[in-house]
Amino acid sequence: MTPDAAWDALTAHFHEVDLLADLGGLAEWDQHVWMPPGGGPLRGQHKGLLAKLQHERLTDPRVADWLAALDGSEHPVRAAAVRNLGRTHRAALAKPSALVQAQAEATSGAFATWVKARQDEDVAAFAPALARVVELTRQEAACLADAADVPFAHPYDALLHQYDPGVTVADLDALFAKLSSGLVDLLDRIRGASQGPTAPSPTPVPVDVQRRIHRRVCEAMGFDMQRGRLDEAPHPFTMGMDPADVRLTTRYFADDLHAGLLGTIHEAGHGLYEQGLPAELDGLALAGTGVGSAASTGVHESQSRFWENTIGRSRPFQAWLAGVVAEETGQDVDAARLFAHANRVAPSFIRVEADEVTYNLHIALRFRLEVALLAGDLGTADLPGAWDDLCQELLGIRPERPSQGVLQDVHWSAGLIGYFPSYTLGNVYAAVLAERMAADLPDLWDRVGAADLAPVLGWLRTHVHGRGHLVDGALLIDGIAAGRDPVDAFLAHLQGRHGGLYGV
Amino acid sequence: MTPDAAWDALTAHFHEVDLLADLGGLAEWDQHVWMPPGGGPLRGQHKGLLAKLQHERLTDPRVADWLAALDGSEHPVRAAAVRNLGRTHRAALAKPSALVQAQAEATSGAFATWVKARQDEDVAAFAPALARVVELTRQEAACLADAADVPFAHPYDALLHQYDPGVTVADLDALFAKLSSGLVDLLDRIRGASQGPTAPSPTPVPVDVQRRIHRRVCEAMGFDMQRGRLDEAPHPFTMGMDPADVRLTTRYFADDLHAGLLGTIHEAGHGLYEQGLPAELDGLALAGTGVGSAASTGVHESQSRFWENTIGRSRPFQAWLAGVVAEETGQDVDAARLFAHANRVAPSFIRVEADEVTYNLHIALRFRLEVALLAGDLGTADLPGAWDDLCQELLGIRPERPSQGVLQDVHWSAGLIGYFPSYTLGNVYAAVLAERMAADLPDLWDRVGAADLAPVLGWLRTHVHGRGHLVDGALLIDGIAAGRDPVDAFLAHLQGRHGGLYGV
Repeated sequence: MTPDAAWDALTAHFHEVDLLADLGGLAEWDQHVWMPPGGGPLRGQHKGLLAKLQHERLTDPRVADWLAALDGSEHPVRAAAVRNLGRTHRAALAKPSALVQAQAEATSGAFATWVKARQDEDVAAFAPALARVVELTRQEAACLADAADVPFAHPYDALLHQYDPGVTVADLDALFAKLSSGLVDLLDRIRGASQGPTAPSPTPVPVDVQRRIHRRVCEAMGFDMQRGRLDEAPHPFTMGMDPADVRLTTRYFADDLHAGLLGTIHEAGHGLYEQGLPAELDGLALAGTGVGSAASTGVHESQSRFWENTIGRSRPFQAWLAGVVAEETGQDVDAARLFAHANRVAPSFIRVEADEVTYNLHIALRFRLEVALLAGDLGTADLPGAWDDLCQELLGIRPERPSQGVLQDVHWSAGLIGYFPSYTLGNVYAAVLAERMAADLPDLWDRVGAADLAPVLGWLRTHVHGRGHLVDGALLIDGIAAGRDPVDAFLAHLQGRHGGLYGV
Repeated sequence: MTPDAAWDALTAHFHEVDLLADLGGLAEWDQHVWMPPGGGPLRGQHKGLLAKLQHERLTDPRVADWLAALDGSEHPVRAAAVRNLGRTHRAALAKPSALVQAQAEATSGAFATWVKARQDEDVAAFAPALARVVELTRQEAACLADAADVPFAHPYDALLHQYDPGVTVADLDALFAKLSSGLVDLLDRIRGASQGPTAPSPTPVPVDVQRRIHRRVCEAMGFDMQRGRLDEAPHPFTMGMDPADVRLTTRYFADDLHAGLLGTIHEAGHGLYEQGLPAELDGLALAGTGVGSAASTGVHESQSRFWENTIGRSRPFQAWLAGVVAEETGQDVDAARLFAHANRVAPSFIRVEADEVTYNLHIALRFRLEVALLAGDLGTADLPGAWDDLCQELLGIRPERPSQGVLQDVHWSAGLIGYFPSYTLGNVYAAVLAERMAADLPDLWDRVGAADLAPVLGWLRTHVHGRGHLVDGALLIDGIAAGRDPVDAFLAHLQGRHGGLYGV
């Protein structure tokens, strides 16, 4: 087979996989946004069928032949496609169907068990289900390691590779050591500070007014409503079928504007990445190549966090927002108070409610526990105590109930082990992107204060979005960082913002 | 293969076809209700892939083996499944892929041509596209006739068989002859009447109040919002994935309550049928059998028309509605005026705006033209003149522009030839169902006046919905009618309602 014939067959084949994934995304989005309650059991069957059809295509033996015919391609898009699709193909082949089936059953049961255990504050009730999920994940990691394109030094590396290819336990050990030390130091200083916001000062805004404000913010960010939507969902998420159809979801809290709005900005950050992914690169159409997609989970998270934290929580943006809120509500709004409310620091038990300073300590905790679980150094029986000890060590507080600690996150019950570090990668990537952007756009913060965000989006389009998955996320960020350590950039950002706010 | 093994394989196979059809329905619903404009091109690819996957399964050669192993099954569900699935299988096999492809291309082009031709009032611009669609439909009819389970006397019979199996041109010739004669007679008398509503008397109601009224009406009808939804769409339709997930769409007109509300009642009539379809019959689960679905297109239309016209436009229902509108708006509402407004008779050019008396004359016209086109007795060049002549003959008015005549409907541009008669079958079926229901429920109209509609729905559940597609629609109605001619029932209904209103 000629390379050109193989290319055409391979990309047509994977374009079908993408269309099936789109339909899965639509089914999932619908389920969380519009589906009537009665539709649940049938929806499970729809998603199961789509997963089966995708798996059949991913494991099709012809894929290996096409990839072999394209081996050594020099065109950067073809080389990247062979790498990306090859990984997907080998990962799908690597997992025996009995394991896939066992994982589906285990996580389905574990989710229900987790919901009840959290409600009942009964950590023992979840332990056997979690032990089973961990055991199956270890088997999965072994299968993935056998099939991967790189050797792994640690079983957890195979899990990381699915989300942030090229990032290893060794990388993250170094990253979290430096980051945690810097965060704990800053947190200590903030704790001893004599100034700074001492209590939450929420901004109550009627929900119908909030809806208008959220839309104005999305538009200011450059999110294109002709190629997207904004709806409500109990657990906000973003679904990107294609750059031309990207759907955000959010929540509104009548008693607190920020609680919903910063979530919308976060999701719109994801959505802008999806809308900005390239349809072609270097003269080649990207449909079915795996190149017109995100560079990694960490880079995806860098986009949501950049917009939510770097821009959304900044003083200039909050000042602009104060004007918008005043205009929409007809009431005076104190910009400084709004800014302070968005940046109050206080260690707390729940990750998803954490401020920008303490958030990554929650992730450091989970990373250490997950690595120990995977390596067999920690048993699930000892997990709750280990969690509480680490929480004490990193955040200086100790959970009083399992729902404040080991039972708080949905991830493990869903079999998502190895995913948490992407959140921290996103945060530190966002910081180094912001530094480089500020160097390229000297009037960046003046523009943010005027909600003139087109240059910001333009910069991200050029350096991140428009590059798709030509190189892996970690390498993409390395290229932009040009020697600057993202952890240093992140700590400098926090020192500037929160150190300033608290006078430490 | 044992019959039991064949049954399991066949129904599992067709359950997958159903799930793919569900996903197609979801994709279509989303396209009309929520999809951002940019999503259009990709959505075409999603639907194309789903159609391909369905077609592969429908034409799978194993289906014939499974059906053969089940031939002669005595269990009524198995016998009905063999009949229903066999038809679908043979129809899919019958059409050569070149024809399917040619039809897709022709209708795709014809739709765009039709939109422009109607806008430009340029009948000649549409003629070549229509000629092509008719020619391909004749080829399709010939293929379907070869593959059908019954012999057809007329090429148009093969098209009818797709929508209302068992109904033939001969049946419809007789039906329309009797119906048209009765309608023209009633219309003549109404034209000469000295009483009755002489001009539209719309009921302006704010759209947000209308939303509440529409929901109250749906609930009064028994439409289960836990297993369904009501949304807005430019061209209202109903999408039923499963009895547990049925979605209605409607429109709201600020200056006319009835215009939107009667549409909602119509769609809710379709939706109640979908929600009432059986999951099992005679001890057999119906998933993948083709038996847990509508008995025919005409029966589906009988449900929407029954609720819209028989119930929704009735004097007792309009009296109840007047009370609801008064309550919701805080204004006095004249029940007699509301009833008269819903039942004003006036010949007009546009089918979808026609009243209950003249509506079926529009269908009679289309039926005669379609049969002549298919038989080759009428060329597309002569069609516009033939349309205008028939309109004059049946409705007593002559179109002044093509958009009032031959260019008004979307159907032909979409290749839907043979579909129109189902609308009239629905209307006359609805009338005979209403007569039988009234015989079984002597206090029917008192209950309707109190919006106590549970007995109405219960009767339909027992006699229509819950029977699924065990027998074909025409036979189902025959069984209920028990000798009463649905056309007589329909004419009697009009005489009672409109004859009374106009005093003729």
